[in-house]
Amino acid sequence: MSKVIVWAVLLCVCLADVPRSIQVVAWTIPAKKLPLPSCASEEIRRTLAKISQPDIQRAKKFIARSKSEWREWAEYARESGADSAKEWAKKYGVTINKKRIEGIDVYELIPRSLSKKMHNRLFVFLHGGGYVFGGGMSGLSEGILIASRTGMRVVAVDYRMPPDYPYPTAVEDVIRVYKVLIHSYAPSAVALGGSSSGGGLVLSVVQQMKKAHLPLPGALFAGSPWADLSKSGDSFYINEGIDRKLVTYDAFLHAAATLYANGRNLKDPAISPLYGDFSGFPPTMLVSGTRDLFLSLTVRVHRKLKAVGSVADLNVYEGLSHVEYFVVSDAPESKDAYGTLKRFLAEHLK
Amino acid sequence: MSKVIVWAVLLCVCLADVPRSIQVVAWTIPAKKLPLPSCASEEIRRTLAKISQPDIQRAKKFIARSKSEWREWAEYARESGADSAKEWAKKYGVTINKKRIEGIDVYELIPRSLSKKMHNRLFVFLHGGGYVFGGGMSGLSEGILIASRTGMRVVAVDYRMPPDYPYPTAVEDVIRVYKVLIHSYAPSAVALGGSSSGGGLVLSVVQQMKKAHLPLPGALFAGSPWADLSKSGDSFYINEGIDRKLVTYDAFLHAAATLYANGRNLKDPAISPLYGDFSGFPPTMLVSGTRDLFLSLTVRVHRKLKAVGSVADLNVYEGLSHVEYFVVSDAPESKDAYGTLKRFLAEHLK
Repeated sequence: MSKVIVWAVLLCVCLADVPRSIQVVAWTIPAKKLPLPSCASEEIRRTLAKISQPDIQRAKKFIARSKSEWREWAEYARESGADSAKEWAKKYGVTINKKRIEGIDVYELIPRSLSKKMHNRLFVFLHGGGYVFGGGMSGLSEGILIASRTGMRVVAVDYRMPPDYPYPTAVEDVIRVYKVLIHSYAPSAVALGGSSSGGGLVLSVVQQMKKAHLPLPGALFAGSPWADLSKSGDSFYINEGIDRKLVTYDAFLHAAATLYANGRNLKDPAISPLYGDFSGFPPTMLVSGTRDLFLSLTVRVHRKLKAVGSVADLNVYEGLSHVEYFVVSDAPESKDAYGTLKRFLAEHLK
Repeated sequence: MSKVIVWAVLLCVCLADVPRSIQVVAWTIPAKKLPLPSCASEEIRRTLAKISQPDIQRAKKFIARSKSEWREWAEYARESGADSAKEWAKKYGVTINKKRIEGIDVYELIPRSLSKKMHNRLFVFLHGGGYVFGGGMSGLSEGILIASRTGMRVVAVDYRMPPDYPYPTAVEDVIRVYKVLIHSYAPSAVALGGSSSGGGLVLSVVQQMKKAHLPLPGALFAGSPWADLSKSGDSFYINEGIDRKLVTYDAFLHAAATLYANGRNLKDPAISPLYGDFSGFPPTMLVSGTRDLFLSLTVRVHRKLKAVGSVADLNVYEGLSHVEYFVVSDAPESKDAYGTLKRFLAEHLK
């Protein structure tokens, strides 16, 4: 073994530090085998063993071609998803009451196991679905898990969405509801949270609350937040074709981002809160997974929160794709994630 | 767009939930382009633009074929690395004093900016290098940064390593030094930390301290810890050929693991502390990156610590390969990581 070769393993096996004159803009990563995640739970491995491998080319076909096609999709998803929400409500012992606050539809989710300790606390839940799906009851699934596993009363805001209501309607709807709710609850006793676009919306809403000098919630939950609507960050590339839920940015996500942005640049802080101001943010819990297309978004939000000195609790699960911590709801990872949330809220809500 | 197609995008764009009768053991991820991490710092992007893409086949050639070849490598690395440590010491204003404690070589690292607030506190540093490299002064680079950026006095333990001293010598050496140091410092005022194999060794040492009923350190730092010496976890596959520092498990890492294990199963908790007992662990800060081959190890250790109720602070940096937070020492990510460490230690050391 020559000394020249040995030199290359110095400083913790630096194998690739050979300077080159040509500036490499992108690397070509060769095809590779990815086994089931042997260190994820049996439930996750069993779920993955049953499904087809994510198909990037097939995923790229899922783009609506007109506003009416978006409406048709969203409406169909809304109807089919409602049944599944009802099943989850039954399974997890949660009662759903539809209400209206300031003209906005909301769903009150009351767990059978309503915690006495949490009786004067409230979780305001914002569903995901790329700012297109998750309307009506179809967006309630994660909210139901949160109610059941934290023992808290949840109000899920059925904020209006594109194609008919692009930015800023969703942000405004949530704030209108919040302003009414804080007549009944101390803001410091209110948690605001959601996953995916729901998590991104949480961040946008808090940035808007700050501008409007509203009292902020006591704690936030941003699960795999869609905090930057542009294709930026390693995980959009590294986990393409690996994340079984989102698969790729280059289809539905890009189209949905464009629809919500309604002409704005996708890096505009108004719609991509990662570029906005995080100063004074309440304690925030974040969740992602090693296969998540939004892993980079999650860790970038985490660093923004740390940079301003906020309490920020990053949780990354081995083997999980985007929002799989609530989709595979009986996996130990799911119980662990919402157990962690329960402890986080018990610590930070006052 | 047919309703059958729409069905597939329900519940946050679940594109791949089609059950199949055949159990898929591994997916084949197609070749892909990976651009420079546009959201990492300019320093990181500039560094990456200058180097060759990691070459998996080339990396697989870096295996010593005999104990004498390991010795030759380690000796050469030890000599060359010492010069670079001296340069860093000068650059970062740190004085190096070689000492012996209970027959073990240690290096005392005294920062010019020794913090008055931290004068009765001590950082015990364990270098990385796969349990083969980093001997003598060559392993001091991260310790120098820690001294300089936390303002703390650092004692770096030059624990003995394979091929001549496989497990358990490294663990025993560190504990012997620690037992002497806690005559001068309250254990609660001592931090124990290091990266890579140094981070894994931190965890092994604390598990051994618990068995020996020794008072535990007040806080731990485990940077991208080599906590499981087997090839387990998503990032060993997903980030193969993407992590520019480690590149692949299937060469140096596997060989070094086998050398250190000295006949033990690679999942034996004695050498792979991920499988050991984390109950009662002190507050622990963890660091990784989205390109890190050890990302899965880092997040798995984080969950073990959370599961036993320990304070565990996970930090994942966008675009960083294994231990790049100390290798590219002037990047904002590096300053941020050790700034975070400084605050973490100020909070938890008593």
